[in-house]
Amino acid sequence: GAGADNDLYINQAIVFIEDAIQYRSINHRVDSRSLWLYRWYYSRTSQWILSLTITTILALAFIEKPSSLTITSDVRYRLPAWNPPCGLTESIELLCFLVFMVDVSVKSYLVGWEEFWKNKWLMAYILTLIVSLTDWIVSLSFFCTEDVRIRRILRPFFLLQNSSMMKKTLKSINSTLPEMASVVLLLAVHLSLFTMFAMLLFARTKDGQQDKEWVEYFRNLPDSLTSLLVLLTTANNPDVMIPAYSKNRAYSIFFILFTVLGNLFLMNLLTAIIYNQFRGYLLKSVQSSLFRRRLGIRAAFEVLSSLKETPANAEQSCVSVEALLQVLQKVEMDARCKQAIMRSLKMCSCDQLSAPQFQKLFEELDKDAIRQHPPSPEYQSHFMQKMQFAFGHPYFGYLGNVVALANIVSICVVLVMDADKQPSERDDFFLGAINCFFILYYLLEMLLKILAMGLRRYLSYPSNRFDGLLTVILLVLEIATFAVYGFPHPGWRPEFMGLLSLWDMVRLVNMLIVFRFLRIIPNMKFMALVVTTLLDLVKNLRAFAGILVVVFYAFAIAGIMLFEGAVVPMGNISMISLLFGHFQAEVIYCLLYFLSINLLCRWAKIYFVAWWLISSVIWVNLFVALLLENFIHKWDRRCHREPLSDIEYQRTVELMFRDVLEEPTEEELMEKLHQHPHLQLCR
Amino acid sequence: GAGADNDLYINQAIVFIEDAIQYRSINHRVDSRSLWLYRWYYSRTSQWILSLTITTILALAFIEKPSSLTITSDVRYRLPAWNPPCGLTESIELLCFLVFMVDVSVKSYLVGWEEFWKNKWLMAYILTLIVSLTDWIVSLSFFCTEDVRIRRILRPFFLLQNSSMMKKTLKSINSTLPEMASVVLLLAVHLSLFTMFAMLLFARTKDGQQDKEWVEYFRNLPDSLTSLLVLLTTANNPDVMIPAYSKNRAYSIFFILFTVLGNLFLMNLLTAIIYNQFRGYLLKSVQSSLFRRRLGIRAAFEVLSSLKETPANAEQSCVSVEALLQVLQKVEMDARCKQAIMRSLKMCSCDQLSAPQFQKLFEELDKDAIRQHPPSPEYQSHFMQKMQFAFGHPYFGYLGNVVALANIVSICVVLVMDADKQPSERDDFFLGAINCFFILYYLLEMLLKILAMGLRRYLSYPSNRFDGLLTVILLVLEIATFAVYGFPHPGWRPEFMGLLSLWDMVRLVNMLIVFRFLRIIPNMKFMALVVTTLLDLVKNLRAFAGILVVVFYAFAIAGIMLFEGAVVPMGNISMISLLFGHFQAEVIYCLLYFLSINLLCRWAKIYFVAWWLISSVIWVNLFVALLLENFIHKWDRRCHREPLSDIEYQRTVELMFRDVLEEPTEEELMEKLHQHPHLQLCR
Repeated sequence: GAGADNDLYINQAIVFIEDAIQYRSINHRVDSRSLWLYRWYYSRTSQWILSLTITTILALAFIEKPSSLTITSDVRYRLPAWNPPCGLTESIELLCFLVFMVDVSVKSYLVGWEEFWKNKWLMAYILTLIVSLTDWIVSLSFFCTEDVRIRRILRPFFLLQNSSMMKKTLKSINSTLPEMASVVLLLAVHLSLFTMFAMLLFARTKDGQQDKEWVEYFRNLPDSLTSLLVLLTTANNPDVMIPAYSKNRAYSIFFILFTVLGNLFLMNLLTAIIYNQFRGYLLKSVQSSLFRRRLGIRAAFEVLSSLKETPANAEQSCVSVEALLQVLQKVEMDARCKQAIMRSLKMCSCDQLSAPQFQKLFEELDKDAIRQHPPSPEYQSHFMQKMQFAFGHPYFGYLGNVVALANIVSICVVLVMDADKQPSERDDFFLGAINCFFILYYLLEMLLKILAMGLRRYLSYPSNRFDGLLTVILLVLEIATFAVYGFPHPGWRPEFMGLLSLWDMVRLVNMLIVFRFLRIIPNMKFMALVVTTLLDLVKNLRAFAGILVVVFYAFAIAGIMLFEGAVVPMGNISMISLLFGHFQAEVIYCLLYFLSINLLCRWAKIYFVAWWLISSVIWVNLFVALLLENFIHKWDRRCHREPLSDIEYQRTVELMFRDVLEEPTEEELMEKLHQHPHLQLCR
Repeated sequence: GAGADNDLYINQAIVFIEDAIQYRSINHRVDSRSLWLYRWYYSRTSQWILSLTITTILALAFIEKPSSLTITSDVRYRLPAWNPPCGLTESIELLCFLVFMVDVSVKSYLVGWEEFWKNKWLMAYILTLIVSLTDWIVSLSFFCTEDVRIRRILRPFFLLQNSSMMKKTLKSINSTLPEMASVVLLLAVHLSLFTMFAMLLFARTKDGQQDKEWVEYFRNLPDSLTSLLVLLTTANNPDVMIPAYSKNRAYSIFFILFTVLGNLFLMNLLTAIIYNQFRGYLLKSVQSSLFRRRLGIRAAFEVLSSLKETPANAEQSCVSVEALLQVLQKVEMDARCKQAIMRSLKMCSCDQLSAPQFQKLFEELDKDAIRQHPPSPEYQSHFMQKMQFAFGHPYFGYLGNVVALANIVSICVVLVMDADKQPSERDDFFLGAINCFFILYYLLEMLLKILAMGLRRYLSYPSNRFDGLLTVILLVLEIATFAVYGFPHPGWRPEFMGLLSLWDMVRLVNMLIVFRFLRIIPNMKFMALVVTTLLDLVKNLRAFAGILVVVFYAFAIAGIMLFEGAVVPMGNISMISLLFGHFQAEVIYCLLYFLSINLLCRWAKIYFVAWWLISSVIWVNLFVALLLENFIHKWDRRCHREPLSDIEYQRTVELMFRDVLEEPTEEELMEKLHQHPHLQLCR
């Protein structure tokens, strides 16, 4: 009937608007039951359960058998890790797999049969699940004694497929691969030609004294390749050239040439290429988000305009305000936005909305969330007004910074003086006394500021919240110290009592004071710019970090499987150090030393080179490209804006690019809508 | 008289056109005698003498007393360096100073009194000369036994002031300094806060077993600072965190946080800032060169239009073709350009040239030097034509590449097989035989190519010249080997004879063959792009490299003066390794070990940190910025051009940017001309 149809249209509009808010694709089934399923699937609870499942299955690695999660990494001291009984982790895994199966079925059902075949991610998801389940069955049938567990390497895939940002980033990386491969090939050619040169140059001589270079670094082809590869990361520079250099200075030309060509030119060329390929990446991704938002709104408009109650206006389709209000009440969205839209809807005198009017209403979504700080209290007393002026003035904040700096300097002085003293010689009186004084000042500062600004205004500034929280913690710690150890006096050096020794307490207080010193950042303009850029970057970087986590996880699991029994914690550390571009030959050899089997040795080398290439060379360069893009954009914008304003903007990537984004045209939107696999528009 | 005036005008026009060709400023004296002096000063001979003088005075460091120019750097083996008698280097220095005094006087005279006071470089030049001469006199009066020679640190200034490119680059760097200083300050804050954290975290404990971290890295403030500074360059990663990590895994969070913030964020931020500041640098510098060229041409036009013989045309000034021809004949310029201008001047039917026509004539200077390869010889015989087709075909070149690759592979195989053999066990027959075969093939290839292309066309390709030269050298070496050691036969292992042993000969031949393999580069499109970018970069980088040399020289001299008697060669190596961002703690400590005096120790630390900051952090980032700019520009352009053409362009920076350069307007040129301090234009 018409009523049922109307209900369907209203529900469709609700879902489309929610899609628009979340920048989701609208290409899903739109019948009543599917819509209910869709809203249930994207409800907070379901998504939370899914995230929890992914976290659980990834975290399993920490308690599964060849794990090394102990406090100390020292093999001599550490206790044997807890070994869960067979079936415990396996049953948790099965539960996770069940959730994933529900997830993949719902997803596949919602996109529809035709879309399913085009969606490679969904197919890969199903394949991964099948392989994992098979492996799980094999595992149980061997009573958990089998060696190879393929499903553990596959686990990060579940994290990957759940994030659309990560998938998008991966696609971008994929399109950059051919150019990257060219440079990596160039690097390989560079490396192999120089290796041949080195082997010819530093050949074995008849005089055993003279060929130190040959013995240490260029004994055979794998050794030479490794030496030069490590030199490419500058990790064994200058050690590798010292024997040759002490024989004849001219040999250093070879090493300098190699390093200049490889490290300065080719490695930076990689940065240039990746930056060049990624220059448009952020903009493109934000542009496509905008398109999704406009499309969702437009789809909502189209379904609402098909409502039967709408007067048949042949010229132009439009939507009744009443229907929209009905929809809005059921849409889940930010309360502030909803109120703003309702308000402008009520202010609008008309009864019907055209498509542009409808779009315009929802532009509220794109706006900056302007946060107005609550007003200061208005005091009647003249004295209080003066107090308010004095302690609400920026100079009072600057004074606080100066005091914090003085505190830091005093701690520093005490540290330098106490550096070489035995713990038993140390006198904690001085530090205790000055810290006590400073913490009292911080307390006073906080109270006066609250007096001047009122509690609500005080708390509305993030810097004040940071400040206040640390001050309260410091106060609690200080009171606890005094309660346990009494007031400081000369020779104040009590013995260990309670949970923490006095010395540990004092150290903790000092660390918190050093940390509190960071409050000066917003006062320095350039620092503030840098820090906000970095914070923005962290937001945009989640996808990149996620991919790094995925790769790290897969590599770590592969490493554990390959070198089981070898020094796994060393592996972790060397993976981290390799991430920072530091091919520490020592660590790798220290690892290889324990791997007595030669075959494993070679595998370990290939494994570490692969990890170095992926993490340090490619990922770090991607990071640099993103940072360059982000920072240059921000820097350019900074020049156009007034430097100081009381209004704080909550910037998102979408807002950062707002002035360069292109609005999609009516035709593009309608074309896309008509391509919708499940929605049949009337006209 | 009018004749003398006319001569003056002609001379002025000649100098202005030469200024335009060399992109020089035209703000110099323009009377007859000054013009003669100016042309003499900028003549090839004078400039060559000046360059020679600069090279000489810089090279003096290698033979002066605390020098270490010996073949080996090993203190045990090296002979005592030659010690020149007092007065020898000093008299060479005096000669150089005399040349510089002439240089500075001529330069000061030519720019004129008023300009002189504005020119800080000239004043600094004079100051440097005065200080150097005073120091020289002091030196002689002490009979060369004085310790401190300030003039040696000042020497690189003479190199700096002679290059306008370097001066311009230095100005750009100077304008970037405030932002760089901000980030360096941020780095310093980061470092000091983390140092305090580290000292509190890894404090001395009562249990001596537990504080390995404290003993090794965080004993006192300078130690902690050094440890973390070295960690910032990742040189002691992961060593520095292993003691703490083996105590408690959580400590690694501290190190990872420090490295991520410092190395990944702040260091790359520096790259971003420098790139952002330098983005327009190349374009701006090329734009100002273009302006100088246009201005010179316009100035020449203006002075020529004041010639008395020109009919008084009140409406528009113009220049007679005859006068221009007279000027052109005396101008020193590229013969090809001169001919082209003469030709178009003769083709032009008019008798008088207007300003735009005049400018247009000289646009020949901006054009690409298009090099047309000479034609192939035309053979009559049908057989020869077939031969020509076969051996002139690109496939023949590819075959040559395949053969070169086969040669490389065979050498590689022999190297791998012989890697562990004693020199006495080695049999050189196999390598000798295959090299002989391959070199014969290379000879044949060269001869056939010459047959097909004709000698002149063959030589007109750089890749052929490279190929041919190496083939000839290989042939000569091979013939020499056979002449001395006879033909190869099994067990061919002759003893040392003549200048080089057979083994050295074979090694040299092999190295040349590896080097010859580089001929494949132009055949791979991406490699060719990369290599041409790098070659372009090298051209644009001369100024940067010059500045690096200046700083390196000053630092090296300062190092020799500071740490005289200490291990100077180690200093050289550690400076080079620091340039590649590798703060090798070991080397510094190895240096410090020899410096027993504590004060010197601290100086050495500051010295190396300063060098690291300037060379690795700032210079390398500048380099990356330039590379990014250059490469991105080239990459964008590549997409617009057809990939292959027989015409080779000789690209200069000026030509690379031609499509984005703005032509200066008539008004700008005339305004600048009227500001000329010495030239009074009639109108």
